[in-house]
Amino acid sequence: MKKGNMLIAQSGGPSMVINQSLVGAVLAAKANKAVGKIYGALHGIQGILDENFIDLRKETKARLEAVAATPSSALGSVRRKPTHEDCLAIFEVLRKLGIRYFFYIGGNDSADTARIINEEAVKAEYEICCMHIPKTIDNDLRENDHTPGWGSAARFVACAVRGDDLDNRALGGVKIDVIMGRNAGFLTAASALARVDSDDGPHLIYLPERAFEEERFVEDVKACMKKYGRCVVAVSEGIADADGTPIAAKFTKEVDSHGNVQLSGTGALGDLLAKIVKEKCGVKRVRSDTFGYLQRSFPGIVSEVDAREARQVGVEAVNAAVNEDVSRGSVTIKRAKSKTYRVTYEIVPLRRVAKETRSMPDAFINRAGNNVTQAFLDYARPIVGPLPLGERFAQLKG
Amino acid sequence: MKKGNMLIAQSGGPSMVINQSLVGAVLAAKANKAVGKIYGALHGIQGILDENFIDLRKETKARLEAVAATPSSALGSVRRKPTHEDCLAIFEVLRKLGIRYFFYIGGNDSADTARIINEEAVKAEYEICCMHIPKTIDNDLRENDHTPGWGSAARFVACAVRGDDLDNRALGGVKIDVIMGRNAGFLTAASALARVDSDDGPHLIYLPERAFEEERFVEDVKACMKKYGRCVVAVSEGIADADGTPIAAKFTKEVDSHGNVQLSGTGALGDLLAKIVKEKCGVKRVRSDTFGYLQRSFPGIVSEVDAREARQVGVEAVNAAVNEDVSRGSVTIKRAKSKTYRVTYEIVPLRRVAKETRSMPDAFINRAGNNVTQAFLDYARPIVGPLPLGERFAQLKG
Repeated sequence: MKKGNMLIAQSGGPSMVINQSLVGAVLAAKANKAVGKIYGALHGIQGILDENFIDLRKETKARLEAVAATPSSALGSVRRKPTHEDCLAIFEVLRKLGIRYFFYIGGNDSADTARIINEEAVKAEYEICCMHIPKTIDNDLRENDHTPGWGSAARFVACAVRGDDLDNRALGGVKIDVIMGRNAGFLTAASALARVDSDDGPHLIYLPERAFEEERFVEDVKACMKKYGRCVVAVSEGIADADGTPIAAKFTKEVDSHGNVQLSGTGALGDLLAKIVKEKCGVKRVRSDTFGYLQRSFPGIVSEVDAREARQVGVEAVNAAVNEDVSRGSVTIKRAKSKTYRVTYEIVPLRRVAKETRSMPDAFINRAGNNVTQAFLDYARPIVGPLPLGERFAQLKG
Repeated sequence: MKKGNMLIAQSGGPSMVINQSLVGAVLAAKANKAVGKIYGALHGIQGILDENFIDLRKETKARLEAVAATPSSALGSVRRKPTHEDCLAIFEVLRKLGIRYFFYIGGNDSADTARIINEEAVKAEYEICCMHIPKTIDNDLRENDHTPGWGSAARFVACAVRGDDLDNRALGGVKIDVIMGRNAGFLTAASALARVDSDDGPHLIYLPERAFEEERFVEDVKACMKKYGRCVVAVSEGIADADGTPIAAKFTKEVDSHGNVQLSGTGALGDLLAKIVKEKCGVKRVRSDTFGYLQRSFPGIVSEVDAREARQVGVEAVNAAVNEDVSRGSVTIKRAKSKTYRVTYEIVPLRRVAKETRSMPDAFINRAGNNVTQAFLDYARPIVGPLPLGERFAQLKG
C-alpha cells in the first residue's frame, strides 16, 4: 500500500450509472488511509491538460450519493485520444499534483487511453497506477460478461419498445425503432425483453452482427404484416451491409478523433428504412423513432443490479490499486456459473479491453438473423431486472 | 336514471393514462345499477362498424387496474371522422346492442366525432347519450385548464430534457430536441421543468404559437453558445413560419382523414435544424433527437396527479350520463382559484371542445418568443409533479 494522491475522470458517452462508478471509487478512496487528495478532472484528459479539477474529498457523502443517482457524466466527458505530446503534458501536471493513482471510467476507447497513458508513463519512468473502470451502454467491452451502463440503457430500450408496441397495436402499421449500438447489437437485442405475449413486438430485430440486406428486410416486414397485421422493428444504428459499410454512414461523414462515424443524434437511418417500407411493402402508416441520447441519460430509469455493479467496479478499482498494489489494469465483470445470478470482479491487462470491441455471440442471434434467442433473454433478464410491462386485453389482436 | 347498455371506445393518439379514463368509466358503470352491458369497441368507431367488441363487464377488477396502469389505448385506436353513412351504420349496430350510453375518449378530433354522432343521432331520432372523455398529450382542448395525458407526457419530456442537458453538459455542442405538439406548445414548454440551476437547459424553447424564423434561431443559438459554451434547444414539431406553414410540412405530404399533416415518426425536422446550426453557427458537434412516440406511451413514467384526474374524467362522464341524465357533452377540467392545487369537473357542450384547439396563452411565453415564463412553470408544476432531476457538481460549467 503506497501513499499518494489520486485522480479520476470520465470519458466517452455518458450512461445512467457512470456516476455510481465515480462515487464508488471516491468513497472507497475516502475510506482508505493511503489515498491523499482526490482530484476529479473535468472532461477527461482534457481537464488534466487544462488543469481543470474538482476536489472530490470536499464533497459531502449526501452530495456524492445524489450525484451517483443522477445520469450523465458528473465530471464531464471528452472524446480525445492522447498523443505522445499529450502524455508528456499530462505527466507534468500529474507530477505537480503528486498523483500516484489514475482512474479512467469509460468504454473501449477510454481503456485505450488508459493503456496509452500507462505505456507512456513506463517510458517516461513515471511511477503511476493506471486503472480503467468499465462503462458502456453498448455492452461491447471484451473480457466482460456485461458492462455497467448497459443494464439501465437496456431497461430504457425494453420499456420504450413495450410502450411503442402497445402504441402500434392501437394504431397499426409499421413502426421502426433505431437503437444505439455501433458494433454490437446487445442494446438493440434488449428490445426483445419488451415481449409479454407471443404476438408482441418487436417482431423483427436487426443487429450489426449480421449483414443488413434491403430485400430481405422488405420480405421480413411483408411476412410480419401478413401474420400480425402490424409490425414493430428494432434496428441497431450500426447495421451495415455485407461489405461492412454502416447503412447510416451513407448519410454522414462526421468522425471523432477515434475515427468513429457519427451514428446517433440524427433520424436519417430511421427515415430511410421507413421510406423503403412505404415504397416496397405497400404499407401506408409507417413511422420511425430514433431513441437517441435518451437511452443513455434518462433520469429515473435504472436497473438496480446495474447500479450496484457500476458502484462496485469503482470500489474494486481503488481497492486493487491501493490495497493490492496492482499497477495497471481494467476491472471486469465475470459471471459465476450458478443457478442464481452472481458476478465476480477481476482485474485484467488494459490491452485486453482497450480499442477492439466484442460482438454478440452467435448463440444469442437466431438463424435467420432477424431476432434473438432464448439464450440471450436468459442472459439479459437478471441484469436488466423486472420491467413495468403492464397488461392488456387479450382480445385486441391488431 | 334511464336503464340501458353502454359502449366505450378510444380514439386518436394514445397516452400514458388514457386507460385510466377507460377503467374509471367502466368501474363507475359497473357500480351503477342503471347500466346493463358494457361494451368496449376495438379501434374506436371502426370497431363499431366492424362489430368488434369486448365485454368489459367480464374483466376482473385486478385486470382492469393493471390495464389502467399500462400506457397506450387498451381498446385500440383509430383516426377516422364518421360520415353521414358511417353514422347510419353505427346506429344500426348500436340499436341492435341496445346502447343508450356512448363514451368516446380522445382529443379534439374525437370530441368532434362524438359531436357528429350526437347530431346525426338527433336527426335519426335515436335516443342515445353521447359523451366525450378528454385525452390529449398536446393539452390543447378548449374549455380545459389542462387535459389528461399531458401531465405524464410532460413528465417524460422534462425528464428526457434533464438527462439530455446533463449529457450535453458532459460533451458540449448544440443539442436539438424535437417534441410533440401540432398546434400548441404546452408539451414542448414542459421541457423548462428540467431546469434546476440558472445555466441549465433547455436554453431555447420554440413553440408553434410564435412564427419560427431561421435567422432569429441562428442568432439565438450563437448567443447561447457565447454565454454557456453549449446549447440545448427544445422545439415543437409544429413550429411554423410566418405564413403558418409548418416547417416539417416541407418534408411530407402525408395527411390523415382529419386533414392533419404527419409530423411525428420522422427525424426530418430535427435533422434540418441541426444542419442549419452546423452551417450557420459554426458549431461542430450538433445533435438532434426527436422524442417521437416514446413521450406518449412510455411505461412507468406517470404523473400521479395526471393518472388520478384521467381516472376521474371517466367516472364523471358516466355519473353525469347515468345519474344526472346529461344527454351529451364533454367532461372538462377546471382549476379552482386557490392557493393549493385543486380541480373541478364540468360538463360542457361538445361543440365547445370539438375540432378547434387552443394554444398557449401569451402570458406563458416570453416576449422574445424563445422561452416560457414563470407563470407557465407555476401552472405546470402541480400537474406534472415532483421530478427526479438529480444533482451535479457545481464546478462543471461547460
